[in-house]
Amino acid sequence: MAKAPVLTPQADDFPRWYQDLINKAELADNGPVRGTMVIRPYGYGLWERMQQELDGRIKKAGAQNAYFPMFIPQHYLTKEAEHVEGFAPELAVVTHGGGKDLEEPVVVRPTSETIINEYFAKWVQSHRDLPLLINQWANVVRWELRPRVFLRTTEFLWQEGHTAHASYEDARDYASMIHTDVYGDFMTNVLGIDVVLGRKTVKERFAGAINTLTLEGMMGDGKALQMGTSHELGQNFAKAFNTTYQLQGAEREYVWQTSWGVSTRMVGGLIMSHGDDNGLRVPPRLAAVQAVVLAIKGDDAVIAKVREIGARLEAAGIRTVVDDRTDTPFGRRAVDWELKGVPLRIEVGPRDLEAGTAMLARRIPGGKEPVSIDALAALLPGILEEDQALLLRQSRERREARTVDVKTIDECVEAAATGWGRISWADLGPEGEAKLAEQGVSVRCLVAADGSVPTSYDQDGNIAIVARAY
Amino acid sequence: MAKAPVLTPQADDFPRWYQDLINKAELADNGPVRGTMVIRPYGYGLWERMQQELDGRIKKAGAQNAYFPMFIPQHYLTKEAEHVEGFAPELAVVTHGGGKDLEEPVVVRPTSETIINEYFAKWVQSHRDLPLLINQWANVVRWELRPRVFLRTTEFLWQEGHTAHASYEDARDYASMIHTDVYGDFMTNVLGIDVVLGRKTVKERFAGAINTLTLEGMMGDGKALQMGTSHELGQNFAKAFNTTYQLQGAEREYVWQTSWGVSTRMVGGLIMSHGDDNGLRVPPRLAAVQAVVLAIKGDDAVIAKVREIGARLEAAGIRTVVDDRTDTPFGRRAVDWELKGVPLRIEVGPRDLEAGTAMLARRIPGGKEPVSIDALAALLPGILEEDQALLLRQSRERREARTVDVKTIDECVEAAATGWGRISWADLGPEGEAKLAEQGVSVRCLVAADGSVPTSYDQDGNIAIVARAY
Repeated sequence: MAKAPVLTPQADDFPRWYQDLINKAELADNGPVRGTMVIRPYGYGLWERMQQELDGRIKKAGAQNAYFPMFIPQHYLTKEAEHVEGFAPELAVVTHGGGKDLEEPVVVRPTSETIINEYFAKWVQSHRDLPLLINQWANVVRWELRPRVFLRTTEFLWQEGHTAHASYEDARDYASMIHTDVYGDFMTNVLGIDVVLGRKTVKERFAGAINTLTLEGMMGDGKALQMGTSHELGQNFAKAFNTTYQLQGAEREYVWQTSWGVSTRMVGGLIMSHGDDNGLRVPPRLAAVQAVVLAIKGDDAVIAKVREIGARLEAAGIRTVVDDRTDTPFGRRAVDWELKGVPLRIEVGPRDLEAGTAMLARRIPGGKEPVSIDALAALLPGILEEDQALLLRQSRERREARTVDVKTIDECVEAAATGWGRISWADLGPEGEAKLAEQGVSVRCLVAADGSVPTSYDQDGNIAIVARAY
Repeated sequence: MAKAPVLTPQADDFPRWYQDLINKAELADNGPVRGTMVIRPYGYGLWERMQQELDGRIKKAGAQNAYFPMFIPQHYLTKEAEHVEGFAPELAVVTHGGGKDLEEPVVVRPTSETIINEYFAKWVQSHRDLPLLINQWANVVRWELRPRVFLRTTEFLWQEGHTAHASYEDARDYASMIHTDVYGDFMTNVLGIDVVLGRKTVKERFAGAINTLTLEGMMGDGKALQMGTSHELGQNFAKAFNTTYQLQGAEREYVWQTSWGVSTRMVGGLIMSHGDDNGLRVPPRLAAVQAVVLAIKGDDAVIAKVREIGARLEAAGIRTVVDDRTDTPFGRRAVDWELKGVPLRIEVGPRDLEAGTAMLARRIPGGKEPVSIDALAALLPGILEEDQALLLRQSRERREARTVDVKTIDECVEAAATGWGRISWADLGPEGEAKLAEQGVSVRCLVAADGSVPTSYDQDGNIAIVARAY
C-alpha cells in the first residue's frame, strides 16, 4: 500500500496543496479577524531574510528608512482623486479612540503617499533637498473580501519607498532603477524566480500613478503573481499636497515623485514557484537554514559527530542547524525538514561513523548520496550555488514552456487556462483587454518586442502578456 | 556679543530643550493625528541600531520572531479582567471596514497577550512544545491624552516577547534573564545608561501580571524614565484562553507565561540621558555614524584626502561618513553634526594637509585637538571605547549625586524635585505610596538592600526608589 501523501498533490488541487503546505510547514495561520494572518516563526524567518536582502539593496540605492504614522486623517485620502477612488472600498476606519468618538475618523494606512506628502511638503524647500529618498518597513491594511494567506490579506507587511525629484527624468530613472536593480535583481538572484519585468497598462496602474512598472512571476499552476511594483507618480500627489521646491528666484516648481513596494505576498510567490508535492524548496541564498545536520539515533558518538559537523559547516559560512532531537523519530524529523524546504540535509547514523561518511540529501534536485564527512565543508558551498541556479532555471523553463504566442481573444483565454499568452498590444488594445477581463484574464504587463521593459505604453511592437492572476 | 544658542538651554526649560533638540536634529515630527509621530531618518536610524543590537540578544535568548495581526476582536480583551481594566481607556477601535460597519468592532493592539494566547492555546499540546519563546517587532496603539514625542505617543514601535513555560520557576527565571541579560546588558553596555533594575510594586504592575521587573533610568533633569519591563504573567492569560499542556496521562496543566517589551521610548531616554546644550551625544556602540570626516573647504586636495581618510576608517571597522558638501558653510555643517551627536568629527582643511594633521573633535567629552592623519585609524577605536565608557560613568555619577536617602513622605517629595529618593519600603508601604501619588511622585521600583533585584515584593530590607517620572 502506498504511503498517504503529506500534502494534497499539486496536480489534484493546487489551492489546497498551497493551504496544506502553509499549515504543515507551520508558515502561517489564519487570524481571528477575517483576512488577517499570523505569521509563524518559520514563515516569518523567510520574510526576515527577504527584508535583510532588500534593505541592503534599498540603502545602496540611496534611500533612508523612516517611519510615518499608520493613522491618516480621512480627508488626506480625498486629496488625490484617483487615489481615493482606488482605495476607498478597502479602508479600515477608526471612529473611536481613548474612550471617545473621534471628531474626524482616522483611516488605517492602505499605503502612505498621502501622509508622506504632507511631510515632504514641509521638508523640501530648495533643490538641495532633492532627491529626497525615503523607505518605510510597515504594516498596511486593505480590507479583503476574498482573502488568501500571504497573497491577499487584510493586513500585510511590506516596504514602501517614496521619493521626490527635481525633474521628470530623474523620477522616471529612479523608479526604473528600483524596478530592475533592486527588485529584479533580488527576485531573480535571491528568490530564484524568473520574473518578467514590464509596464502596466493604463487599466492596471496604481491609483494615482502616471506609470506602473511591475514584476510578474509564473506560479506552479501557470497563473501569474504580481511580485512587486514601482510607480512614477508624476506631480499628482505634489499638486494635491503642494509639495514644491524653489527654482531660481522666488518661483516654485512641483516635485516629481515615485513610490514602490514589495510585501509578504512574496512569501506566497516563493511557495507557489518552488514548492512541490513534498513541501517547500527554499533557495539557498534566501534560506535562514541552508543545511541541517541530523542525528539518526541518540548514540553519544553520533550526537558528538553531528555537533562537530554543524560547527565545521558554520565555520565554513554555511547557515546550519543541528537536529539532535532523537526522542522524535528520525523519519518524522526528515519529513518535517523536507516540508520546510531546507536545501541540504546531512544525515548521520552509527554505521556512517565507521565509514566516515554521511548521507547528503538535496531537497532542490532531490536524491541522496553518501559523501565523505571530511569533504562536506568544502563541497557544500558549490552545491548550494548549483541548487540556487537550478531553481531559477526551472522557473525559467516552466515560464517558457507554458507561454504561447496568441492572436485572438479566444486564444488568450485558452492560453490562460494553463499558462501565459503573448499577444501584440496593437492588436489587443484596451478594448480587447476589457473583453479578457470579463473572462477573468488580465494583461499582466507590456514588454517590448525584444523582451525588455518598453519605454512607453504605445511603443511599436509592444507585447501584452495575458494570464489569470492571484 | 554671545552667539544665540542653537537650543533652549537645559537649565532654562528642560522640556523645551528636548523638543528643540528633536526638531533641530531632525529626529521626529508630530504626526497629523494627535499623539502620533513621524520618525525622521536620523531618529529612525537610532531605533534601527537599537533593534539590531536587541534582536541579536533576543535570538541568543532562544526566542524566535513571528508576527500576529494588529486587529484584535474586541471580546478577546475582556477575557482577562485586570488586563481589560488597564487598557480599555486607551484603545483605538475600528468600527468600519471595506465599506461596511463591522459586526464586531476590532481593537488595534495596545499589546498582544490576548491574541497571542489564542494561538499558544492551539500550538502548545505537550511538554515538548515548551518552552515556547516568541518575539514580535511591531507597532502598537495606546490613545494618549498628554502625548510627548518618543516618550508617550499614541502609536509607537516596540518589541514584545511572549513565552510559555511548564513551571512557575522556569517562567520566573526567563523573565529575570530577559530583564538582566538582554535589557540590562543592552541599556548599560550599548545605550550607556546606568539603569536601575528592580521590581515594581503591586500598584505599578502591568495589567494582568503577577510580577513586573523594570529598568529605570535617571534623565538629565533628575526625573525617572521606565526604559523597559519584563513581566511574570503567572497563569492569568493561560486560564483566560485555556492555554494548557498535557501532563502524564490525560491530565492537563495551564502554562506559566512571561511578556517583556522595550519601545521607541528608549530614543527619548537616550536624548534625555546624554544630550547637552549643544545637542545629542550618541554612544559609539549605538551610533550608525561613529565618525564624520569633514572637508572644511572645497579644495580638490582636501576632498581627495577626506575621502581617503573615510575609506581608511571604514576599513578599520569604524562606521564613517564623509561630508564633502562644501557648498554648505563648514560652520553650519559642524553645528549640525554636533546637534546630531556623532561621536567624532575629523575636520580637514588645506593647512592641515601640509602638516599631515587633522582636527579631531570629540563630541562626548568635548574639545578639539590636532592629530596625525596617519595615526587616526589606529587611534580612534580606543577613543570610541573611552567615550562609550565616559557616557555610562556620567550617567552613574549623575544618578548617585542626585539620589538621597530619605525617611518621610515630605522628604520623598523634596528629593523628587531634583532627583530620586531612597526609602525603606517597610516604612513607606502601599499607603505611603498612595500619598506620594497625590503629589505626582511614584515608586519607580523596589531594590534589595544590596542594590540587587529583590526576589519578592516584601523581602526584608527592600528599598523603594521614588521619583517623578515621564
